[in-house]
Amino acid sequence: MAQESNNTLTVAHQAFEHFQHGLATGEWNQFLDMLTEDFSFWFPAGKYHGLNQGKERAREFFQYVSECFKGGLTLTLDQVTSNETTVVFEFRDEGALFGEPYKNRIAVSFDVRGNKICSYREYFGSDGKSN
Amino acid sequence: MAQESNNTLTVAHQAFEHFQHGLATGEWNQFLDMLTEDFSFWFPAGKYHGLNQGKERAREFFQYVSECFKGGLTLTLDQVTSNETTVVFEFRDEGALFGEPYKNRIAVSFDVRGNKICSYREYFGSDGKSN
Repeated sequence: MAQESNNTLTVAHQAFEHFQHGLATGEWNQFLDMLTEDFSFWFPAGKYHGLNQGKERAREFFQYVSECFKGGLTLTLDQVTSNETTVVFEFRDEGALFGEPYKNRIAVSFDVRGNKICSYREYFGSDGKSN
Repeated sequence: MAQESNNTLTVAHQAFEHFQHGLATGEWNQFLDMLTEDFSFWFPAGKYHGLNQGKERAREFFQYVSECFKGGLTLTLDQVTSNETTVVFEFRDEGALFGEPYKNRIAVSFDVRGNKICSYREYFGSDGKSN
């Protein structure tokens, strides 16, 4: 069980690094390479609100995110919690949304299967204006 | 370290039971008894948006929540993740907000100190209409 938890944490941390890189730069390939083909994600609001299924949908979504935040988002990681299958990252982010100052608090929950992320849930902790 | 993690999980689970009871019934005393005097919490939106400090502020907040959801909220717990100090509960809730159907996805992150909760961060995973 401890070994499973260690693998889960290692895989999720690697994916989170690529996620952070994607948000900062708009380069998502490394993150997308870590998603299973049947990857699904839940997003809290907007055009991608609700359950989104499949890796292609994820590719579209992350491209869309990087169009919204052209200058990239900078993350400050506050907490990491985990169990055998799932790792939650709590962080604050900052950047510009269509040119306007943007700040938020986020929790993302990555579910790990083998050496990949098979699903993810995102949660908003603030309003896009303060964190 | 394993012992610390076990205590953290036990305390957080007990607090979450009382939290769930408070949301269902409007009776918050058991939950409030588990908060440190210097308890603080972050809430994502509305009147209590941002950082709220002190146990009295928490008492006000939870009474306000139970006025908004008079019939109570029913929770479905999906995931629990933890480390030495912090436990994250991901759940879906359902009820009526000022008489209108309400559904959401929530992540709450409880920080444990000794046998009490010293702070908490709440995150919204949906829009209040679907989960």
